[in-house]
Amino acid sequence: MLTNHIPIYMQIADDIRNKILNEEYKINSKIPTEDMIVEQYDVSRMTGRQAVTELVNEGLVYRVHGKGVFVSRKKLERNLNRLNGFYEDMKEKGYTPGSKIIKFHKRLPTQREQHILLMKSNQEVYYIRRIRYIDDIPIALQSLIVPVHRVPNLDCIDLNQRSFYSYLEENGTPLKKAEQRMEAIMAPEIANEMDISPKLPFFYFERISCDKNEVPLELLSSYFRGDQYSYAITLYRD
Amino acid sequence: MLTNHIPIYMQIADDIRNKILNEEYKINSKIPTEDMIVEQYDVSRMTGRQAVTELVNEGLVYRVHGKGVFVSRKKLERNLNRLNGFYEDMKEKGYTPGSKIIKFHKRLPTQREQHILLMKSNQEVYYIRRIRYIDDIPIALQSLIVPVHRVPNLDCIDLNQRSFYSYLEENGTPLKKAEQRMEAIMAPEIANEMDISPKLPFFYFERISCDKNEVPLELLSSYFRGDQYSYAITLYRD
Repeated sequence: MLTNHIPIYMQIADDIRNKILNEEYKINSKIPTEDMIVEQYDVSRMTGRQAVTELVNEGLVYRVHGKGVFVSRKKLERNLNRLNGFYEDMKEKGYTPGSKIIKFHKRLPTQREQHILLMKSNQEVYYIRRIRYIDDIPIALQSLIVPVHRVPNLDCIDLNQRSFYSYLEENGTPLKKAEQRMEAIMAPEIANEMDISPKLPFFYFERISCDKNEVPLELLSSYFRGDQYSYAITLYRD
Repeated sequence: MLTNHIPIYMQIADDIRNKILNEEYKINSKIPTEDMIVEQYDVSRMTGRQAVTELVNEGLVYRVHGKGVFVSRKKLERNLNRLNGFYEDMKEKGYTPGSKIIKFHKRLPTQREQHILLMKSNQEVYYIRRIRYIDDIPIALQSLIVPVHRVPNLDCIDLNQRSFYSYLEENGTPLKKAEQRMEAIMAPEIANEMDISPKLPFFYFERISCDKNEVPLELLSSYFRGDQYSYAITLYRD
């Protein structure tokens, strides 16, 4: 094993990264083309490409086919250390969350919903399908399923103006705990419904949230845009 | 707001899901085509398609262009509630983790690495790039960066045969805490390096792990295949 110097492409990436962090290259502005990098740093085309790829992989810049490479907007960062709703989490960070309700009705539960929400086949659920926005940008598509007998007046609440989770608290049925499964997927039909490119990857979450008696109160399926959203979590070893 | 019955497409999805869970439809076998669903359930093509899309979105089945829809292998599920390494986590679940080292050398740190790992520009790092496998299937590509002066004998360890994290414990420098950022991204160059389809989405993780004195010991960048991997986390509200 030999002692190596820093690969040239990483040095170039370092240099461009610094210019992005210093805001010499601003959000949505173009960074130097590969041709310019080749000339400016006197390197091969391959090295220039590797430098750009490094920054693309970090999410700092994005490629637009046939147009060039541009500085990314910083992704919204959401914390995964606490059971939070989108509305309260975004409010807390100083954003103005919005939403558009696509569907809001009562219906009987599917077999899967009966199983997950511990319901009988003749007990109804609320089904609420929403696109969530920040600054008028569609960020997520969520389907919320709630047993009607647990939150009977949910149809009287303006969920555009307040947090569902804080409503549950005032309603005397606060959430305590949730089990969440997370995937990275393509979902062209969902992208289509959100009017965004079908080539964008999503975080897919399925969350089952329970009250203090471990009784499930919501089944939440969320598709969050991978290009707009990131998650931060603090992990401990013991 | 009217009381609704369960949409037909969800009832069909329920039916097919049950057959998958009962193993009537086995892993990698074909589920009924849209034509067959249309005939069997006497529904429109649109409804048949929605039923299948529902199951695709749940990750239970996958489409192969021009061939049909097949039952997915259950994704590997990793727990996000504790700071674990891939090796120890997979071992604990009964899998046999493997890895292929692509690069393993010492070099000087980039500016970004100096900043994150609190290092001087003349202090070296180990740079280890590996593809991680389960049952000979490539699952992840990881780049691990470790300050040489903190773990001087890392080049004497066979990282294919043991966990880096448990080595650190025996070495007297156990990890205590990590900050992790997670993204859902496309990474065609990484897919290429792993010899898998460039159309698959990835989970991208960047983890900075510290010892009990909050001194950073590793900078780990990981690309996990979205089609093979999922994460589970338990969240609490207080």
